[in-house]
Amino acid sequence: MTKFEKKQWLSQLLEHQNVDHIIEQLKEMPTIEVASILKDLPHELIPTYYHAFSIKQRAYILADFPEDEQLLIFHQTEKMTFGEIFEAMESNERMEFYRRLEPEEQINLLPFLHKEVRMEVLELSKYPAETAGGIMSTDFATVMEKLTCAEAIDKVRRDAPSKKMIYYIYAVDQDMRLQGFLTMKDLIMATPETLVKEVVHHNYVASEVSDDRELVAQKIEMYDLVALPVVNQFGQLVGIVTHDEAIEVIRQEQTEDMEKFMGIMPEEDPENYFDTSTLQHFKKRVVWIVGLAALGIISGMIIHRFEDALEKMIILALYMPMMADTGGNSGSQSATVVIRAMALGQINLKQWVKVIWKEIKISAMLALLLAILTMAKVLFLSSAANIPEGFSLLEIASVIALALGTQVITSAIIGTGLPLTVKKFGGDPAVVASPAITTIVDITGLLIYFGMATLFFF
Amino acid sequence: MTKFEKKQWLSQLLEHQNVDHIIEQLKEMPTIEVASILKDLPHELIPTYYHAFSIKQRAYILADFPEDEQLLIFHQTEKMTFGEIFEAMESNERMEFYRRLEPEEQINLLPFLHKEVRMEVLELSKYPAETAGGIMSTDFATVMEKLTCAEAIDKVRRDAPSKKMIYYIYAVDQDMRLQGFLTMKDLIMATPETLVKEVVHHNYVASEVSDDRELVAQKIEMYDLVALPVVNQFGQLVGIVTHDEAIEVIRQEQTEDMEKFMGIMPEEDPENYFDTSTLQHFKKRVVWIVGLAALGIISGMIIHRFEDALEKMIILALYMPMMADTGGNSGSQSATVVIRAMALGQINLKQWVKVIWKEIKISAMLALLLAILTMAKVLFLSSAANIPEGFSLLEIASVIALALGTQVITSAIIGTGLPLTVKKFGGDPAVVASPAITTIVDITGLLIYFGMATLFFF
Repeated sequence: MTKFEKKQWLSQLLEHQNVDHIIEQLKEMPTIEVASILKDLPHELIPTYYHAFSIKQRAYILADFPEDEQLLIFHQTEKMTFGEIFEAMESNERMEFYRRLEPEEQINLLPFLHKEVRMEVLELSKYPAETAGGIMSTDFATVMEKLTCAEAIDKVRRDAPSKKMIYYIYAVDQDMRLQGFLTMKDLIMATPETLVKEVVHHNYVASEVSDDRELVAQKIEMYDLVALPVVNQFGQLVGIVTHDEAIEVIRQEQTEDMEKFMGIMPEEDPENYFDTSTLQHFKKRVVWIVGLAALGIISGMIIHRFEDALEKMIILALYMPMMADTGGNSGSQSATVVIRAMALGQINLKQWVKVIWKEIKISAMLALLLAILTMAKVLFLSSAANIPEGFSLLEIASVIALALGTQVITSAIIGTGLPLTVKKFGGDPAVVASPAITTIVDITGLLIYFGMATLFFF
Repeated sequence: MTKFEKKQWLSQLLEHQNVDHIIEQLKEMPTIEVASILKDLPHELIPTYYHAFSIKQRAYILADFPEDEQLLIFHQTEKMTFGEIFEAMESNERMEFYRRLEPEEQINLLPFLHKEVRMEVLELSKYPAETAGGIMSTDFATVMEKLTCAEAIDKVRRDAPSKKMIYYIYAVDQDMRLQGFLTMKDLIMATPETLVKEVVHHNYVASEVSDDRELVAQKIEMYDLVALPVVNQFGQLVGIVTHDEAIEVIRQEQTEDMEKFMGIMPEEDPENYFDTSTLQHFKKRVVWIVGLAALGIISGMIIHRFEDALEKMIILALYMPMMADTGGNSGSQSATVVIRAMALGQINLKQWVKVIWKEIKISAMLALLLAILTMAKVLFLSSAANIPEGFSLLEIASVIALALGTQVITSAIIGTGLPLTVKKFGGDPAVVASPAITTIVDITGLLIYFGMATLFFF
């Protein structure tokens, strides 16, 4: 569905003509597309169109709605009906929605659910949202090893009314302890009398229910899994995490990292840009900006201390921004590369000496190049500038170039060292945000700059 | 396999004792883990251990090796054997490796392949690496609609010797034109005499062979697909892109975006941090750093123009870094949020007025807060500073605070507007890197700062 097609659907729905015909067409479309269209309608119109669909379709559409529209439907729908829709949802989508409700709303919903669903919701709500338990689905197929493949296929037929695909079929014992898995293809390929036991793969990958969700996503990625089984501390199979859930986790963690890196506070439930209010955006960014403006005091104080030097050699003021900028770039680039590599598991802490050494070499090359260009720049630009007696432009240019080169290298070391150090102390390296590094290297840059000027000239 | 277990495997292999026993154990492990172990061995040892495995296992292990180890095996293995391994690889893994060879190496490999594989390799090598055609696999299952479900199951049994899972089964006509898809579960659930035609889903999502790979990954993500069929301009099914390939694309594009955002040139084939040499790292970063240092000339020239003002009111120099820093932070944050939202498809160009307005509101709130804090900071810090006759500290503090507030807002507008503008002209918004924005807002910041100072004081 292209953006143009979506606009057409929206116009037709807004005109409110030929509604039955439109609904008939929408019912044939993938529910993700229907959700995408409906959510952009004015809120007064959404419930009417939404409730024209079957319970099952409404369950899928609700799962694909953003938080605001989910809550709209929740508040606008009679509880009994909503209970049916809720029960028809995938268990992990159900839980994602359930967590968005206030405690009183949760309590008010529960009586309208059948006992099994109610028990499951209460059970699953104990798991923190960012763990395997928090993102798993309880919709999976199991067989026991003693069955024949033909019997297993019959069991799968009976147990699987859900529209979703069967991913893997899990072999469990009478206590639901996970013993292995097979694919539909394995069942088909085997002769009907073969025992499941002979076909099952005993060498499987699983997650524990308390594992961090990012770890779960990495396992799914590493082993190219369609679904990953989740077991509790007794080895019993309690859920599965599917490949599409892994992609969602990867996307969310990626936005979180990038935002953290830029000094934006991550939020519990990352939403759309437009779904987040101005005030919410403000709250996410204010901490860092204010904190760093405060840190900027220190740079101000350093300049204050070197005020005399500045007054005597005003030309120094001209190149202050360049020192800050280049230091910021150099440090941020190093930090970016190192943080990404750590996130992808390509660097571990033991290797940090190698990493810092590599960064020193790279930045030394950059520093040399920049120093030469800076010499040329100063000599060319400031030939008519105001230089005090007793100093030649060449001398000044050399000192500035030297300071810049040093700044590039020290910034790279800081940009590399800071994430590694934070990680060593158990923190999240992405928190050592670009704004933090730029402000720190500003300070060191000013110290290097004025330090060298004072050393050579005063 | 934990890091500790991996270390143990490596030690055992290095000791070179009990080798047969170790190999027997490794043969039972997932090939991704075997590849992960072998690749960290010294290069002289890898081929010996590698060739202890079956052709099929060697194919999978080779696919999981990084580029360097793949080329090592290629050069160290007799061509006939390598041909067998190459043919046993998944078609998209084959092509990924094939693209890493020099043209002469490619030509030398082809004679050792069977005709069908050779034709396929030549056919697929026409597709650019970053398109659907470049990442698709040709291992898929097809049936014709006129078959019964029982006949379809038989066909799948016959056609599917590969160890990989059958994802979807595609319904095609006699010209291989794609008509729909079904799952194994659909086949199982139907009665054996039902025609495929009655069970098949005609409403399917597909990609064209020339689609950008990022678009392909987005489709797989949006529709929660296990695999996405790829068709050519005639509607014929030519390949599939699987969910794990989508995750790889998402990861690579993410690293690319983050690096672009920091002014690091993206490379064709993103590799490990350590696998990239110092010189390669340097080349990736040098362009931006030098370009921006050059742009720093302009800030220098602006300061030069306001040299007199600076000399008269040296206190202005103290707060220059704060203007630059805060502007850089503000602009980068806005840019980050906007670029991420665009990448996730949450903002389109039509909405850019809304976006800029939203950013103005957010930054206005930040600006107000910062201006108040800055007033306090200046009054507190610079009470003993060197102020020229005729001006009060309060006046100066107010002007600095006003300049800072304006800087925050203009930086946010620039940080928002630049990515949107670049996108409008068909470019990649992530290229408007943080270093670019920081340098530009430096320039505007200096103009605002000195402009206001001159306006109010001189």
